[in-house]
Amino acid sequence: MQEHSDLMRGLGRTIAFVPTMGFLHEGHLSLIRKGRELGDNLIVSIFVNPAQFSPGEDFESYPRNLDRDFELAQKEGADVIFIPDGKELYPRNFQTYIELEKLPNHLCGISRPTFLKGVATVVTKLFNLVKPHIAVFGEKDYQQLIVIRRMVRDLNFEINIVGVPTLREPDGLAMSSRNSYLTPEQRINALCIYKSLKKAQELLEGGVNDAASIINAASGLIKSNEGTNIDYISICDPETLADMETINRPALMALAVKMGETRLIDNMILNPE
Amino acid sequence: MQEHSDLMRGLGRTIAFVPTMGFLHEGHLSLIRKGRELGDNLIVSIFVNPAQFSPGEDFESYPRNLDRDFELAQKEGADVIFIPDGKELYPRNFQTYIELEKLPNHLCGISRPTFLKGVATVVTKLFNLVKPHIAVFGEKDYQQLIVIRRMVRDLNFEINIVGVPTLREPDGLAMSSRNSYLTPEQRINALCIYKSLKKAQELLEGGVNDAASIINAASGLIKSNEGTNIDYISICDPETLADMETINRPALMALAVKMGETRLIDNMILNPE
Repeated sequence: MQEHSDLMRGLGRTIAFVPTMGFLHEGHLSLIRKGRELGDNLIVSIFVNPAQFSPGEDFESYPRNLDRDFELAQKEGADVIFIPDGKELYPRNFQTYIELEKLPNHLCGISRPTFLKGVATVVTKLFNLVKPHIAVFGEKDYQQLIVIRRMVRDLNFEINIVGVPTLREPDGLAMSSRNSYLTPEQRINALCIYKSLKKAQELLEGGVNDAASIINAASGLIKSNEGTNIDYISICDPETLADMETINRPALMALAVKMGETRLIDNMILNPE
Repeated sequence: MQEHSDLMRGLGRTIAFVPTMGFLHEGHLSLIRKGRELGDNLIVSIFVNPAQFSPGEDFESYPRNLDRDFELAQKEGADVIFIPDGKELYPRNFQTYIELEKLPNHLCGISRPTFLKGVATVVTKLFNLVKPHIAVFGEKDYQQLIVIRRMVRDLNFEINIVGVPTLREPDGLAMSSRNSYLTPEQRINALCIYKSLKKAQELLEGGVNDAASIINAASGLIKSNEGTNIDYISICDPETLADMETINRPALMALAVKMGETRLIDNMILNPE
């Protein structure tokens, strides 16, 4: 991988990189298309990263379909599909991790304490292997995106991080590999996540700018659906993720909801006025 | 800095890098000479890294002499002398650190809990700025050297880490910028550090292979000198730094001793047979 990237860099080609955990859906494909548009040489990685799962989470059962992924990535114009080996990435006595002091103390970082450390670590490793000029991430994993932006700035990686808006199913559910876990009934009820974000935007447009009231309404809407369990609903500063009480400037609304055993996330920027 | 290195890499030049905290002495110059020998383009950085000092340590008083350093590095053939700005390296809201889980739980890592985290973090940053093929470090900071080797392997940096043996004053004291803190009397007494390592090697050659006895003898020798305060004396595995009870294979003997307020370190590989 490093040899290939050295060669491309030597030829003056711009390397665009799209790291994924595979089981590609339209959301991933939109990232890959963005990478294709921005880079001369497009590298897509497929790696289900054990370091970002806690014991008891779905590392083992995370959906995988390498043959299909390979075909889809190739069809979208990937020049290289990089499938690193887990034992090579995490050899015996592996012990080096990237940790951020503040951003993980919010949102998903609270109920998934090793998640963002695992993401930051594997992304650093992949950056050193792929040596991209540009890396593309989805805005659906908003906290992950800003953790990576902060890490890139703090560690002086010379890499341009590009965010791509969330893709949704026709009814509004955010695309996610984990949607494949849902039963038909859960799939219908899961729509309440997106509806709660739309409801928040409507309330704000109607003059309600008090975060607690909006969270309360969103929470009520979600709880009215069978089999939902709210992990968090937060209205916060889009840069620091610190809670906001009043929405007097653009705010991030982010939430995580369990549908049975399946944990889904979504987010939206709420714009006052 | 990154532009220069991209240019050199584009021309097929091998970049050798010697990171220092300045106040250069013959020890540093031996690293710079090694870098000159190994690289087509030689980059020396000078930066007293605040992140590797704890409150109460000597960050403020650490000796500095930029003009002299500049001259010395240039004389030894440095092509670039890189003096990063502290506020640029650690901007407001900086929060990303590299942490190792095991190696820092030994030797200097115990009494200096932020030291190795600070070193690993700044070295990662400098690697991303300087983009070297080769980086040169002194064996005097043995734990730092193996932390960096482990980090390079774990984070997939494509950089060859080269260690250079410790340079000593004619009487045997390991060269260190911190030797400049010593009073003439402390300078004389500080020799006990090196003597204790020689004593250990002699005892081993005389058939004593029990680590506790050797540490005991070394400790006695040091304590017989006025104004010494032992931080640690350790005989351990050179790879993992785990304590060894019996020296039946090459062992690292490492120690830290305070001479008044000045903390000095030294080490030696003890070879049985």
